[in-house]
Amino acid sequence: MTIDLELTPKQKRPAGERCCEPVVYPDVDREQAIRLAEVAKALGDPIRLQLVDVLRRHAGKVCVCELVPLFDVSQPTLSHHLKKLRDAGLVDSERRGLWAYYYVLPHALGELGAWLR
Amino acid sequence: MTIDLELTPKQKRPAGERCCEPVVYPDVDREQAIRLAEVAKALGDPIRLQLVDVLRRHAGKVCVCELVPLFDVSQPTLSHHLKKLRDAGLVDSERRGLWAYYYVLPHALGELGAWLR
Repeated sequence: MTIDLELTPKQKRPAGERCCEPVVYPDVDREQAIRLAEVAKALGDPIRLQLVDVLRRHAGKVCVCELVPLFDVSQPTLSHHLKKLRDAGLVDSERRGLWAYYYVLPHALGELGAWLR
Repeated sequence: MTIDLELTPKQKRPAGERCCEPVVYPDVDREQAIRLAEVAKALGDPIRLQLVDVLRRHAGKVCVCELVPLFDVSQPTLSHHLKKLRDAGLVDSERRGLWAYYYVLPHALGELGAWLR
């Protein structure tokens, strides 16, 4: 793999100063980077990260009413965080009567985990 | 492990409607969740994610001047992203002459990767 080492005038380094070895290109393309970054961004809050932690370690679907006592925030705040996780494709939910039951969608987490390995 | 299944009046479900199985607690404590979320948040941008992707696959330290041609953004924008990554403990830099050279600090990425596994 070769890369273009030509620098624009703005970036031109002074004569005699050696700058760099050629670098590698990103292994993830722009589209994958957008997807992975969306997942990472959704995990970029301690409560959302702990929500995912609970949900993925729980075998079934978990009622919002069981999640609320675990966190020091109001139910609307928790629902807001769950919505962000759902929008990013990390969790999904199912309504049963008055309550929404949440569960993890493992694919998105798996993709980020695979990239980090 | 037991958890308190008492619900506040606001959350009380109608008689006869069964809600949930007891859920597990988060495995990560608040302090660890804050740390992991900070790393995830720093990765929550496609350019920052691709920057980390380049840096961690490169054996040595990489000059900013070599990173700029890889991305469709200005050098100040790239430096801003690199600063965010540094603030989150994902990368560090060293100044040589006019240029800053960046490299990955593997610990933070490793901790997030371990959590995702």
